[in-house]
Amino acid sequence: MNAPANARTSAASEEIASWFQPHVPAMAGYTPGEQPRGGNPIKLNTNENPYPPSPRVLEALRNAIDERLRLYPDPTATAYRQTVADVLGVDPAMVLAGNGSDDLLTILTRAFAGPGRLIVAPTPSYILYRTLAQLQNAPFVEVPYRDDWSLDFDAIVAHQPRLTLLANPNSPSGTALAPEHVGELAARLEGPLVVDEAYADFADANCLNLIARHPNVIVTRSLSKGYGLAGLRVGHLIARPEVVAHLNKVKDSYNCDALSIVGAAAALKDATYLAHTRRLVIATRQRLAQAMRSQFGCQVPESQANFVWCVGGVATEATYLALKERGILTRWMRYPGIVEGLRISVGTDEHIDQLLSALNDIVKLS
Amino acid sequence: MNAPANARTSAASEEIASWFQPHVPAMAGYTPGEQPRGGNPIKLNTNENPYPPSPRVLEALRNAIDERLRLYPDPTATAYRQTVADVLGVDPAMVLAGNGSDDLLTILTRAFAGPGRLIVAPTPSYILYRTLAQLQNAPFVEVPYRDDWSLDFDAIVAHQPRLTLLANPNSPSGTALAPEHVGELAARLEGPLVVDEAYADFADANCLNLIARHPNVIVTRSLSKGYGLAGLRVGHLIARPEVVAHLNKVKDSYNCDALSIVGAAAALKDATYLAHTRRLVIATRQRLAQAMRSQFGCQVPESQANFVWCVGGVATEATYLALKERGILTRWMRYPGIVEGLRISVGTDEHIDQLLSALNDIVKLS
Repeated sequence: MNAPANARTSAASEEIASWFQPHVPAMAGYTPGEQPRGGNPIKLNTNENPYPPSPRVLEALRNAIDERLRLYPDPTATAYRQTVADVLGVDPAMVLAGNGSDDLLTILTRAFAGPGRLIVAPTPSYILYRTLAQLQNAPFVEVPYRDDWSLDFDAIVAHQPRLTLLANPNSPSGTALAPEHVGELAARLEGPLVVDEAYADFADANCLNLIARHPNVIVTRSLSKGYGLAGLRVGHLIARPEVVAHLNKVKDSYNCDALSIVGAAAALKDATYLAHTRRLVIATRQRLAQAMRSQFGCQVPESQANFVWCVGGVATEATYLALKERGILTRWMRYPGIVEGLRISVGTDEHIDQLLSALNDIVKLS
Repeated sequence: MNAPANARTSAASEEIASWFQPHVPAMAGYTPGEQPRGGNPIKLNTNENPYPPSPRVLEALRNAIDERLRLYPDPTATAYRQTVADVLGVDPAMVLAGNGSDDLLTILTRAFAGPGRLIVAPTPSYILYRTLAQLQNAPFVEVPYRDDWSLDFDAIVAHQPRLTLLANPNSPSGTALAPEHVGELAARLEGPLVVDEAYADFADANCLNLIARHPNVIVTRSLSKGYGLAGLRVGHLIARPEVVAHLNKVKDSYNCDALSIVGAAAALKDATYLAHTRRLVIATRQRLAQAMRSQFGCQVPESQANFVWCVGGVATEATYLALKERGILTRWMRYPGIVEGLRISVGTDEHIDQLLSALNDIVKLS
């Protein structure tokens, strides 16, 4: 008698799982925020910029669409790296381009972490860090933020990490440590300190200047947030040339495509547009944070990013679901045993008006 | 007395190297073929398609350049995977999209290989495989092709590989094993067999149908060669749904950007254009191979790809350099202790005429 079909399927699944490195079948995998394909919701869940990219970006992209696409891109994105270097005032040898800053984080974890090579990150923070550690089969320790969103450096240093990942500004809190304070941590660490500055375009300060004094500081940046180019997948990191030279061996040969780096370079060159959209986002952020505090009873730390983090008051899973029903996507985030809350991306003023109005309705109904 | 400046620099370099996983500083890194940024050479060195992408691709790309770029792309490239599934006649759950097939090869080595987990590949073959093994700190064994470009399956199976990488058609030889023969290898292996079909669009057959009978077969494809889209960085792999589900956890969350997958889907849908450019490339390939044999004394195996592999006769490093001086880039490839030769990508008829004319001049001068 044959085994029933589902038993056969299960046996096949087990055999297939046995081919993988054991940590892969054991992983749940990272769940990105929802990217709805229809229904045109108000999308305040993945920290995209509410404003479109600069018109110069769209023009540069249009001009790059021709038969040159048959050719491989420049493997080291020379022109793009030169633009980054010019804009930031660093040497191009200090710049590595990536397929989004997630690609750079992957390169960094592959370069520094592995079995027996510890990654330390604060918590709550970017949940991808844990997934990246799992993929490297590397031990991962989270050090909790204090209630005032300061960090216990002693606790981090005591773990002797091979790699420390610090999102600054942090997600989901939106808070940022002052650069001089980050420098103190860098000075005490024996391994690299990655400062993930995906949200730095919305902050008052950044850690770029630390690299000169602290060769273990590596700064990662993204075009996804400040420049409104999440769809293009471009980011870059800045570090000492010797660090970049080794990391260059770890990246995929052609990790950045020909169009993306053209569009991203045009974005970096349009500083006026960045300043304009940045001002709009920051003004709306202040208004949103204030409303969430005063009208809806939430604790909202001062945000240096393009989102606000709401705990308590109206910030419940039920509210998240009620907003979703009304076509407004936010992100309900759970850090088990630590905190849960509602992360709301800063939208246009119109979107935030609609959000606040929906929250008023939800409060009345409950 | 202070140490001299270069001694200090060296000490800093050593400290920086010590932060990395030891295999990273020990690596040389992969060297892609030259991508000259100026001078307009005849480029026959990296197997790009000599014909531009389909006009429908350029149109689809132009239509996608708008403010939607501020949004993240669909993390699993649903629409693109559906197109692949439709064109190939497979289930979308059997498809994983990648940032070029190099991204897929990275995902595969990260999933299956690591310290103590052996990768086996034939040699001479795609030189990136060794780099990918080094990055995973995985042992790597190469099994030589026989003189007739057949493979000793016993030798491969005896190593009990955790992962077997078979470029088919192979580079640099351009030769291909028949699918039923590859199926015999799959049946004898206990782990996954990756059939790297980057060049399959120029071949008489492919291994897609093996997956139904052999759950350990994973086929990777690229849009770079057959579809003339090396600049966009898109590829896909086809495997059993259970295999794809695990691999999906290993890829970067947003590995494919919004424009690339739109352009690549348009390319896949234009089967007429593919058939047209494919015919042109194959006709020129035959003429080039014949000329290299009869006029220039080279051994040239029957190519199933968009390049020819030339050994002996005029195929020397001196010829490679003399061609380069004349503005014609080919690729001089050395497999130490095994073989060295000149790999020439199939260009337009005009480019190949210029190549053959330059070779005639070079022969006369020597």
